Amino acid sequence: MSYQFREGRFMWDQAEELFPICRSITGEGLRHTLSHLQNIIPEIEIKEVPSGQQIFDWTIPNEWNVRDAFILTPNGEKIANFRENNLHLVSYSEPIQKKLSLDELQPHLHSIPDKPDLVPYRTSYYRRDWGFCMPHNLRQKLQQGTYEVFIDTKLEPGFLNYAELYISGQSKEEIMFSTYCCHPSLANDNLSGVVLALALAMGLQEREKLRHSYRFLWTPETIGALAWLHDNLDHAKESVKAGFVLTCVGDEGPFSYMPSRTGKTLADRLICAVLLANELPYCAYSFHQRGSDERQFCHPNIDLPFASLMRSKYDEFDEYHTSADNMDFLSKNALQETYDLHMQMIELLEENRVYTPTTVGEPQLGKRNLYSSLSKSVLDGDETIRYKILGYADGKLDLLSLTEIVKAPPPVIIEQIQKLVDAKVLELVT
Amino acid sequence: MSYQFREGRFMWDQAEELFPICRSITGEGLRHTLSHLQNIIPEIEIKEVPSGQQIFDWTIPNEWNVRDAFILTPNGEKIANFRENNLHLVSYSEPIQKKLSLDELQPHLHSIPDKPDLVPYRTSYYRRDWGFCMPHNLRQKLQQGTYEVFIDTKLEPGFLNYAELYISGQSKEEIMFSTYCCHPSLANDNLSGVVLALALAMGLQEREKLRHSYRFLWTPETIGALAWLHDNLDHAKESVKAGFVLTCVGDEGPFSYMPSRTGKTLADRLICAVLLANELPYCAYSFHQRGSDERQFCHPNIDLPFASLMRSKYDEFDEYHTSADNMDFLSKNALQETYDLHMQMIELLEENRVYTPTTVGEPQLGKRNLYSSLSKSVLDGDETIRYKILGYADGKLDLLSLTEIVKAPPPVIIEQIQKLVDAKVLELVT
Amino acid sequence: MSYQFREGRFMWDQAEELFPICRSITGEGLRHTLSHLQNIIPEIEIKEVPSGQQIFDWTIPNEWNVRDAFILTPNGEKIANFRENNLHLVSYSEPIQKKLSLDELQPHLHSIPDKPDLVPYRTSYYRRDWGFCMPHNLRQKLQQGTYEVFIDTKLEPGFLNYAELYISGQSKEEIMFSTYCCHPSLANDNLSGVVLALALAMGLQEREKLRHSYRFLWTPETIGALAWLHDNLDHAKESVKAGFVLTCVGDEGPFSYMPSRTGKTLADRLICAVLLANELPYCAYSFHQRGSDERQFCHPNIDLPFASLMRSKYDEFDEYHTSADNMDFLSKNALQETYDLHMQMIELLEENRVYTPTTVGEPQLGKRNLYSSLSKSVLDGDETIRYKILGYADGKLDLLSLTEIVKAPPPVIIEQIQKLVDAKVLELVT
Repeated sequence: MSYQFREGRFMWDQAEELFPICRSITGEGLRHTLSHLQNIIPEIEIKEVPSGQQIFDWTIPNEWNVRDAFILTPNGEKIANFRENNLHLVSYSEPIQKKLSLDELQPHLHSIPDKPDLVPYRTSYYRRDWGFCMPHNLRQKLQQGTYEVFIDTKLEPGFLNYAELYISGQSKEEIMFSTYCCHPSLANDNLSGVVLALALAMGLQEREKLRHSYRFLWTPETIGALAWLHDNLDHAKESVKAGFVLTCVGDEGPFSYMPSRTGKTLADRLICAVLLANELPYCAYSFHQRGSDERQFCHPNIDLPFASLMRSKYDEFDEYHTSADNMDFLSKNALQETYDLHMQMIELLEENRVYTPTTVGEPQLGKRNLYSSLSKSVLDGDETIRYKILGYADGKLDLLSLTEIVKAPPPVIIEQIQKLVDAKVLELVT
Repeated sequence: MSYQFREGRFMWDQAEELFPICRSITGEGLRHTLSHLQNIIPEIEIKEVPSGQQIFDWTIPNEWNVRDAFILTPNGEKIANFRENNLHLVSYSEPIQKKLSLDELQPHLHSIPDKPDLVPYRTSYYRRDWGFCMPHNLRQKLQQGTYEVFIDTKLEPGFLNYAELYISGQSKEEIMFSTYCCHPSLANDNLSGVVLALALAMGLQEREKLRHSYRFLWTPETIGALAWLHDNLDHAKESVKAGFVLTCVGDEGPFSYMPSRTGKTLADRLICAVLLANELPYCAYSFHQRGSDERQFCHPNIDLPFASLMRSKYDEFDEYHTSADNMDFLSKNALQETYDLHMQMIELLEENRVYTPTTVGEPQLGKRNLYSSLSKSVLDGDETIRYKILGYADGKLDLLSLTEIVKAPPPVIIEQIQKLVDAKVLELVT
Repeated sequence: MSYQFREGRFMWDQAEELFPICRSITGEGLRHTLSHLQNIIPEIEIKEVPSGQQIFDWTIPNEWNVRDAFILTPNGEKIANFRENNLHLVSYSEPIQKKLSLDELQPHLHSIPDKPDLVPYRTSYYRRDWGFCMPHNLRQKLQQGTYEVFIDTKLEPGFLNYAELYISGQSKEEIMFSTYCCHPSLANDNLSGVVLALALAMGLQEREKLRHSYRFLWTPETIGALAWLHDNLDHAKESVKAGFVLTCVGDEGPFSYMPSRTGKTLADRLICAVLLANELPYCAYSFHQRGSDERQFCHPNIDLPFASLMRSKYDEFDEYHTSADNMDFLSKNALQETYDLHMQMIELLEENRVYTPTTVGEPQLGKRNLYSSLSKSVLDGDETIRYKILGYADGKLDLLSLTEIVKAPPPVIIEQIQKLVDAKVLELVT
């Protein structure tokens, strides 16, 4: 690795830097975030789509920007202060400044009775509304009296932005990684995905040679993914061989797998292969439980081969969409592990070749120093892997199939295949 | 429903009326039963096949009718009196009047040591014989002495009868319901099937429009089914898309599923789909355990797509083929539930269309009031069903496939599909 | 059976006679063993391949013969005496006579600390070496001092031998049984396989008529199997429909199944069918755990349909490759059972015909005395088997498929099919 610190540390640091920014599906915070990424990888392009543009069944909304927002209590105390935590303001709240009673205010307040100390995350992108989020404990203590709400936002024609990076390889066949960057100060959902995409892109840029081309998207969820698809659907249907939605990839929970609609695409096979090969238990969800941009990429009329390898699935962890999804919740180790598994999938794709035995019948491994000559019962780990490979490498099964059969991590299999090729008992089928 | 009481009540009442009649595979009791059905649905036709006619490997037997039958004990007491319970007489007993010792009588007596209070049901259709059935307790108390057996039956050339109803729909493709009506005073086996067929036929007649045609058969088991097949095999092979044997459908036991020979016909799919969709646990049997007219309909040389959805399977409940299978054993609720599941299968068939999304990518449900616009974690039940439907309705999967995937009851799925069609986010593929 | 005692006894006696001989992959002991087989079945041919001949990736080694071998302790005591137990000498030890200290001797000694009373079995076919095997307890007691090792062996150009028997049937389609005979005084591994092959061959020779041809091989493991393949590969690929490696078939352990590479060959189906049909639990291994001549027969570039039905799998029992794998470990009953299962597979192949019903709809079994006419709930065993057969014999499924469906032992199914054919309700499809 050429970056000075290992990826987990790098990713965590990047997330920390981006954490305070108030992002939404449009606006300065979003653009700021994308520029930050572009500063690290200059090849990243930032695209813009004007408000009002029709995107399939959707319309790009006005751009939303916030200067300030808070509530003044009857005592003159500032609460639900946007400047303290951008989650306090319901995203896309329209501007307002007015006095009102507690009863009039209540319908605009959001809290979670079961998690009374946490601020929930709420949005109202497509219905004009305003509101504040706060801990339920605080809400319970509000006294009768006259409150003043102050929301200094702008909702005006502007742009929706997203970032795109294309890394060209020998083949036009594309592997896609798509992630969303429209959530404000929430760490696992989804700064984890934003920085994993960044790290994977940096990892790929360092490789000398790539057989596949790679495309990365950082978009606002739903509307941003649709905006890209709107301009690229034909190309994508022709070129994308496997795609991954990067979401909720940084907590210490066990791995989770969101399948494509059929559960049988190359992306599904890759995810299951690396999880099994690394002997990692995982929660396999149903496509009925989908909730991120696989909703668009796998839509029946779009039908791209996308699946997701997550840690705790969105919606399934207590911190989800609350102020507890903060930097303390994000783990360097978890980010690193998830990065490694995605890199193993990339290895599998890049090295997905077919090998055939050079011999008829087993080769004599002893004379090649690949097998101890004095008979014994126990093979060591490398011998066992080679033995499994030699049983199945048949000039037809590719590396992915061998990984599914041998159930060892791709780097291990690749290393042992190389030893067998060097010893001239296997050869590459070209 | 247009019949004044709900189907469960209606079916139970009909069964109660038919219960006392002494049915067999031929005879007046059978004809009486069929006429009763015809009185309710005049379109039902009653067919007759003369004794001696060859039906594949079988021959229509002589017609059997009973006037009286009993045993006189040495004390002059009448026991095993046919007029008290028609189960006392072995069906197809030949006429006899003679005196004999208890030792000579014993081989003609039938009882069940393990169920000492019950009268078993026995038949001897194709081997001339006679016999009486009685509780084992009573049999044990019989004293030595001279007995007189009196069986006033007639076994003479006549007819085998069965009833048939054809309900014509838009298509010649047929769905069949076959049930048997040759058992005397036994309620679940099989007056339950007889009245379920009647109720389903009435339900279908009430529908304004049918896409499929429907055929109902009330026949004596085995020989009657074969008689119909003998005259209709070519037609059936061409037209019947799914068939169901209605047997043992009225007790409170859990549902049971008897597959076709392959387990993969449309009938099998329908049964499993509605059971799973309604989250009903069920016992799945093997075709090795078949015992009713699926023996004929699924015979390798007949090979029609028949399966059965039962309550407790014949042969698997204690009351089976005994005097305990009486009206007390029959449940209005169970009949109603089984009726509803069969009607759900009919709904599935009638509505088995294909839908496709009108949008590329997800539709914006919020603007159509099909989705609450303020983001939240929990969908309500209808939203969840619609969400699952929208994930899979792809212009290829039909309603049956969607039901298998969504696992919700067909009426619920149909209702939500309609909402999505009304909202113009799904459309019918024609 | 025409041999005077049942096969289990016969096989055990033959193994006992062969047990003391010192076999290796070449040499007089191997030839002696093969001649013994030829004395029993004169049609067995003994082949020879000269040292130095190239066999695919291997070279036939020099022939190895032993006259004597032992160690003299400082006290002049003879230990590790080859004449007492041929396991004491590492197979293919080169000749040597020299004095050396205990420290110099130790690298040439082999023992098993966990099984301190047993002599291990070790070989060094392809690397020039010498060594002695002894109980760990004895090794521990060796005193410092001057030892003298004496190994009077010859390693000179000669021959590798194997035995082959071809039993010609009506068809050129071949069924193969291959076993290895290169192990010295080890009973289950693999005199059990040697004598099972012998008994199966005798059993086949007694049959009046064979539809298939059968080939038996007794070869040195690996190099012998490869030598045969080297000369017969094209023929084998064309003719062999199923093959079985006979190894470790004589201990009282449960049955084990080693699949082919795909697990889907005719050999795999036969093994699983007879195990399930006889309701025998078994350990199913992965091809990754292969260890005998399936390594060659199923090699990707050879790809013959071989699998193995064993008792305790090689490598999985405590006695494996030690002096405890002696005649006490071999069981007549186990040999007999394994023989019977292999004979059932042969029956399945020989009788693997297709039957079709003569009737449309069920036949009337009562009039043919194949079914009791008075209705009752319980079928006897034979009736049940016939009922299952009649449900599935459809003019397409063959006996093997019926066995997989009915799950009864082939001889039982064959007997009941014959009854149904005799009763003219089934007929052979020709």
